Amino acid sequence: MNELTLEICLSPELLHLYNLEGKTAVVVDVLRATSCIVAGLACGIASITPVASLEEARVLMAAGYIGAGEREGKQVEGFPLGNSPFSYMQPCLKGKKVVTTTTNGTQAIQRSLAASEIVIGAFLNLSAVATYLLQRSRSAVVICAGWRGKVNLEDTLLAGALAHKLENFFTWKDDSVLAAKALYAHMRADLHEHLKSSSHYQRLAHLGAQQDLHFCLEIDRFHVVPILANGEIILA
Amino acid sequence: MNELTLEICLSPELLHLYNLEGKTAVVVDVLRATSCIVAGLACGIASITPVASLEEARVLMAAGYIGAGEREGKQVEGFPLGNSPFSYMQPCLKGKKVVTTTTNGTQAIQRSLAASEIVIGAFLNLSAVATYLLQRSRSAVVICAGWRGKVNLEDTLLAGALAHKLENFFTWKDDSVLAAKALYAHMRADLHEHLKSSSHYQRLAHLGAQQDLHFCLEIDRFHVVPILANGEIILA
Repeated sequence: MNELTLEICLSPELLHLYNLEGKTAVVVDVLRATSCIVAGLACGIASITPVASLEEARVLMAAGYIGAGEREGKQVEGFPLGNSPFSYMQPCLKGKKVVTTTTNGTQAIQRSLAASEIVIGAFLNLSAVATYLLQRSRSAVVICAGWRGKVNLEDTLLAGALAHKLENFFTWKDDSVLAAKALYAHMRADLHEHLKSSSHYQRLAHLGAQQDLHFCLEIDRFHVVPILANGEIILA
Repeated sequence: MNELTLEICLSPELLHLYNLEGKTAVVVDVLRATSCIVAGLACGIASITPVASLEEARVLMAAGYIGAGEREGKQVEGFPLGNSPFSYMQPCLKGKKVVTTTTNGTQAIQRSLAASEIVIGAFLNLSAVATYLLQRSRSAVVICAGWRGKVNLEDTLLAGALAHKLENFFTWKDDSVLAAKALYAHMRADLHEHLKSSSHYQRLAHLGAQQDLHFCLEIDRFHVVPILANGEIILA
């Protein structure tokens, strides 16, 4: 068996330093894009199409997709869904196709297309993703969406949690993995408390999204693995 | 008094996201460029001129400077000094002018020129730099040299150590500061042990530089603050 390697790209701005070819990319944007995708698909949405711009989203909305649009943490006018996982879990969305565009998360997906496969990760499906990566038996790069190109705490912690789960099966040379894993070890006893001082947590709390914050930090609420196939995210 | 902010740029590849104007940039490349500069100036070198390319270094060597050249951890042929702090501490260098070019460290200095002032930081002069930043009373950005654009553990830890020392006097919004500071808190009891698994430590240990590694992780060996003035690094 080939040696499986794990890498962590702490910001999309560093993506040019990573070779994604032949690897699985795990895109993470804990607050809140990838948490929304995981929750929405687990609750019955048929597919979620990530697009980078609001314009592209509007084109698909005209074709019958339900639109989810977020910029700077706020729902965009004219889009029925924002970026709260609860809005993605509404029963009326069962079987529907959704198009989504967010500040950081969907942009990170678009920039990961060189990978052999793109998987959507969140704390909500942490163990499911780890198990999937083991089953695929392919080297992986965790791509943190960050905030406007800068490294953020919540995505780094999720990447560290994945490294923690995979450490007996994957190897790494990358200091980013060591750092993320140590950070997770340092904070895992109370993720929520540690994240309270992080920048995006405070931004969202200020916008009244406390319920979302609690929900997005729940570990293993869902046992699903969303993957990108033909431009749509569906369950593997 | 204005509020003093501290930011940490974890890789030179992220530098475009930071506004350095009016701020002090603290450049750190623990293994080994900035440790060499601190040790060399503390031991009597008159000035150290950082240049990005080997060609620029050769021009100054022709003008009488002592040349230090490192690429990929190894001393460059034709350069009397490499990138070991011990080579910078030789008594014969007292009062001499040195020109230096290294894989990551001097490049990070070149890219920080938009700052009001550039300070050279290492574990060797940790407290001296922290005290200097307090005395200057100016917002600061710590710029980690990293390794070929990727985030590395040793520079992140030094940035975290600075944040730890400055936390009662500086504020931050940046998750990079939270992450670096938590990482330092997690590892500070035995930095050397934790760094043993880091990529550049292993690279240097493989090249036989164990003595350098131990030395570069010594905290507060020197009470000097190198700063860049007119293209030369001298003691403040």
